[in-house]
Amino acid sequence: MTDLHGVFPYLVSPVDADGRVTSDVLGRLVNDLIDAGVHGLTPLGSTGEFAYLSNEQRAAIVRATVEASAGRVPVVAGVASTVTADAVAQARLYAKLGADGILAILESYFPLGEPQVEAYFRAIADAVDVPVVLYTNPQFQRTDLSLDVIARLSEHPRIHYIKDASTNTGRLLSIMNRSEKLKVFSASAHIPACVMLIGGVGWMAGPACVIPRQSVRLYELCRAGKWPQAMELQRELWRINEVFARFNLAACIKTALALQGYDVGNPIPPQRPLGAEECRVVAGALAAVAPAAETIPA
Amino acid sequence: MTDLHGVFPYLVSPVDADGRVTSDVLGRLVNDLIDAGVHGLTPLGSTGEFAYLSNEQRAAIVRATVEASAGRVPVVAGVASTVTADAVAQARLYAKLGADGILAILESYFPLGEPQVEAYFRAIADAVDVPVVLYTNPQFQRTDLSLDVIARLSEHPRIHYIKDASTNTGRLLSIMNRSEKLKVFSASAHIPACVMLIGGVGWMAGPACVIPRQSVRLYELCRAGKWPQAMELQRELWRINEVFARFNLAACIKTALALQGYDVGNPIPPQRPLGAEECRVVAGALAAVAPAAETIPA
Amino acid sequence: MTDLHGVFPYLVSPVDADGRVTSDVLGRLVNDLIDAGVHGLTPLGSTGEFAYLSNEQRAAIVRATVEASAGRVPVVAGVASTVTADAVAQARLYAKLGADGILAILESYFPLGEPQVEAYFRAIADAVDVPVVLYTNPQFQRTDLSLDVIARLSEHPRIHYIKDASTNTGRLLSIMNRSEKLKVFSASAHIPACVMLIGGVGWMAGPACVIPRQSVRLYELCRAGKWPQAMELQRELWRINEVFARFNLAACIKTALALQGYDVGNPIPPQRPLGAEECRVVAGALAAVAPAAETIPA
Amino acid sequence: MTDLHGVFPYLVSPVDADGRVTSDVLGRLVNDLIDAGVHGLTPLGSTGEFAYLSNEQRAAIVRATVEASAGRVPVVAGVASTVTADAVAQARLYAKLGADGILAILESYFPLGEPQVEAYFRAIADAVDVPVVLYTNPQFQRTDLSLDVIARLSEHPRIHYIKDASTNTGRLLSIMNRSEKLKVFSASAHIPACVMLIGGVGWMAGPACVIPRQSVRLYELCRAGKWPQAMELQRELWRINEVFARFNLAACIKTALALQGYDVGNPIPPQRPLGAEECRVVAGALAAVAPAAETIPA
Repeated sequence: MTDLHGVFPYLVSPVDADGRVTSDVLGRLVNDLIDAGVHGLTPLGSTGEFAYLSNEQRAAIVRATVEASAGRVPVVAGVASTVTADAVAQARLYAKLGADGILAILESYFPLGEPQVEAYFRAIADAVDVPVVLYTNPQFQRTDLSLDVIARLSEHPRIHYIKDASTNTGRLLSIMNRSEKLKVFSASAHIPACVMLIGGVGWMAGPACVIPRQSVRLYELCRAGKWPQAMELQRELWRINEVFARFNLAACIKTALALQGYDVGNPIPPQRPLGAEECRVVAGALAAVAPAAETIPA
Repeated sequence: MTDLHGVFPYLVSPVDADGRVTSDVLGRLVNDLIDAGVHGLTPLGSTGEFAYLSNEQRAAIVRATVEASAGRVPVVAGVASTVTADAVAQARLYAKLGADGILAILESYFPLGEPQVEAYFRAIADAVDVPVVLYTNPQFQRTDLSLDVIARLSEHPRIHYIKDASTNTGRLLSIMNRSEKLKVFSASAHIPACVMLIGGVGWMAGPACVIPRQSVRLYELCRAGKWPQAMELQRELWRINEVFARFNLAACIKTALALQGYDVGNPIPPQRPLGAEECRVVAGALAAVAPAAETIPA
Repeated sequence: MTDLHGVFPYLVSPVDADGRVTSDVLGRLVNDLIDAGVHGLTPLGSTGEFAYLSNEQRAAIVRATVEASAGRVPVVAGVASTVTADAVAQARLYAKLGADGILAILESYFPLGEPQVEAYFRAIADAVDVPVVLYTNPQFQRTDLSLDVIARLSEHPRIHYIKDASTNTGRLLSIMNRSEKLKVFSASAHIPACVMLIGGVGWMAGPACVIPRQSVRLYELCRAGKWPQAMELQRELWRINEVFARFNLAACIKTALALQGYDVGNPIPPQRPLGAEECRVVAGALAAVAPAAETIPA
Repeated sequence: MTDLHGVFPYLVSPVDADGRVTSDVLGRLVNDLIDAGVHGLTPLGSTGEFAYLSNEQRAAIVRATVEASAGRVPVVAGVASTVTADAVAQARLYAKLGADGILAILESYFPLGEPQVEAYFRAIADAVDVPVVLYTNPQFQRTDLSLDVIARLSEHPRIHYIKDASTNTGRLLSIMNRSEKLKVFSASAHIPACVMLIGGVGWMAGPACVIPRQSVRLYELCRAGKWPQAMELQRELWRINEVFARFNLAACIKTALALQGYDVGNPIPPQRPLGAEECRVVAGALAAVAPAAETIPA
């Protein structure tokens, strides 16, 4: 089975005003990210506005990503639902479309008990033959994964990874201590260099869409154990995460990509696009980290 | 425009193991509730598991409710989405299917600002020519409606009602003080008799599915200003709300209806049906309030 | 044992810039409130800034209140601590100083289990021979009282009352249903007329310091079962609660009393006094409810 | 001014059943910790149960710590209050008793605005001529410090440090990016090695009371830039933090010290001591990290 590691940009979902996925824009972005050295791609994460897309739009996003990546890097597609059967159907479809892995996300309305949470993820993993990444984001999702549930799920033959989007980095070390089999990806709410230090295998995050070269460079420094140099770069790149945490995440990444020449459109209403002042802040943050890319050895 | 008031049971959504809406079961329930004297029907509220149904399933629920009610009482259909365009499409469809009103629900993933919240509800109200009920449930939804937003929305020619499912009864009086035009429905988290005392026009709630006669009797006592008698009945009926607040709401109402002979099925997985002990608690609560129905004058 | 019921103003704690309790100001306020017809007095509640006073200052407040009230109405003194032994010492001292009842408040830093919560309140009740009022305020205190703990505590021979400062009025009815022995006082976060309707015995609240006549009138209308007239008055008075919920509670009541000629000083730093605009809002709210006092039959 | 850095154990407060501080027990612990190589001592942090001690007990703890440390390592005493004047008096007293620094903690009951939060900390720093450590613990305290407030406070000539007890390690990097002057101490909710990697100067934490040699060793590995070795040790020591996060923190550290032969007594009631099973878990965790101390070169 594919070994997933490294920098996986959380792709935005470019959708025009009529709700049509603009596959050509997405394809160009995918191509440029692969050229910049990213190790994989993750459509339909939080940044990808999965929560604002119909199942048809989601399938179009996965299809466009798989086609553009053309087997050059693994594609890990996000599956999200409140309903087990719907999640299973999504997972099967994306695997059939060519996804190399599934990022499994639980949405909920009424609170769920641990056995129900576990059953949901297990059903997804049972339905596919590609590796599954558990995803937990206590800030935006309504049900969290306990360490016990994570440990039990890690015994499943296809659940190999977890991406935790809490801000609690200590929790990641606890997960590693409990579940040796499970490999941990960072999210943009953690400091990637810290997650690498404690044993993480990479990160899945929106900012990597707009600073792919710098992100890959940071990953390589961490892998080489060059921690002082890694931290020097990390400290600069963290400003991007800070800016993106202040505003709506999808709006920020879409704005930054528009500034870089990708016509990815606005976040889906009722979300609002960034205002003029907010765009200036994003542009300023991008400009500040641009030199970090220049100095990267080719 | 229809004047909405009184007891509106929040209908469950009977769905079989294959995901098919069992319209005949729903039709029989609708018929019996109308015979019991309820003043209206609300499909696709929280109790109706809107958050677990596809748009196709939702439409089937509205269609079956409208057909069974056959114009005898108003049907107020729930519309819920994270996306404005989707909510507008739902609202138009349900109005076309014959709904007499729309219960407008905002789902969200990323937090929204007040102008975006307001725009969402305004877009729904602009799209239909039936009255709109605002619905806010801070416990399960991720975006609340401030008093300012409510006041501004109440100026819309079709937004006439609000159903607030917070537990904060004082907030309802504040809404009434701020927005004289807006009529307030209680939810099962408030004491209906208290909401009637302060000027409410009725309640929309799951428990009314299983104790319709008692609920109608309580409403009539409140309307007649017989507060001591109303409170005597209210005190008994509150035990039902207490039980239903302890477990998953949809599971409770579906269990109670199954006990009454309606084959409404289980809550949609990964939600779990009640266990044996929980069923006993529900059955006990129902038995305890049964005498209250007996003594109701025909 | 004294039967507590009716309107109990939550007294402010007048303290000068050097931290000295100004007993004469407090004494005049106590006298005027009794003349206005209040049924009791509660020093050292939230409004009384118990959380900002040393044990010496607290004792001075209780002493001044008991002396000024001179047996005309019962004085229920607030006891609050993170430490059982300290709370017990406070309770014993206040009873010795002449308090007719104890309002028992649990402060906490680390979370407590239910047995520890229960033991704290039980220790206070064991230490005195006056009636004890349980006080729970989930908004500002860090440990709530569950219905189970409340039910067990209500079996204690001296725990006869509870004052719940949540906004959840339904919870009060649940407490009454569970614990028939326990009498319930409303707080300013509930609508007093609703709490009276469901069986409450009165309210303990800051606003009653500044609108005592109107509050007593409202209580009398409720006791007489004149619910429409009660609600007419309640609707007006609720605006006071709304204003006081917007700003720091102690600052609001102290400002309102200053406007009425009581030199109660500022809230204790680092709390800040209200600004000019906020004072105008408070003055406006007071002016709006003044006519309600005029029309009260002598 | 003293340069603070390294491992600062958060001292427990040994108090007997009558509330007397047992200075001899505390003195022996202080002595042993200094022998084990710790770089400083912090009485009256969360672990020190400051929230459960009278001002007299607090002074006795500071006095005993200063006397036992006898100038060998700096003592940074915790100051905590809801009231500015009280905090200032504590800070002055502890400096006079010989404390080399002040750990400033804000307690609150009603919420405070940013200017009030800032004024509180500024008043403490104005009152002493030793360095001040800001302390923020969003889990147990009711008012957090925003990045803006922290940045403004860092301009004060005596505010040189911050100890952040959130679990959000990224926030620490943001603080460093914003306020170059401010040096950051980790708390037990962060992974110390990660905080050292991003530029921290040490940690103030309860577990260092019971694993002082291992903690000092970890600090030295980090300072030497031996990150792989540091992480190997960190991974083991993290199990201690995990155990201590499961139960009441003061109870855990007091239990662990009792197991090591220090008669520090129980946590102050109504807090409860650990049960037999919990003690076994603590003992097991201690035994598991004991070998890490053995292998430390003398």
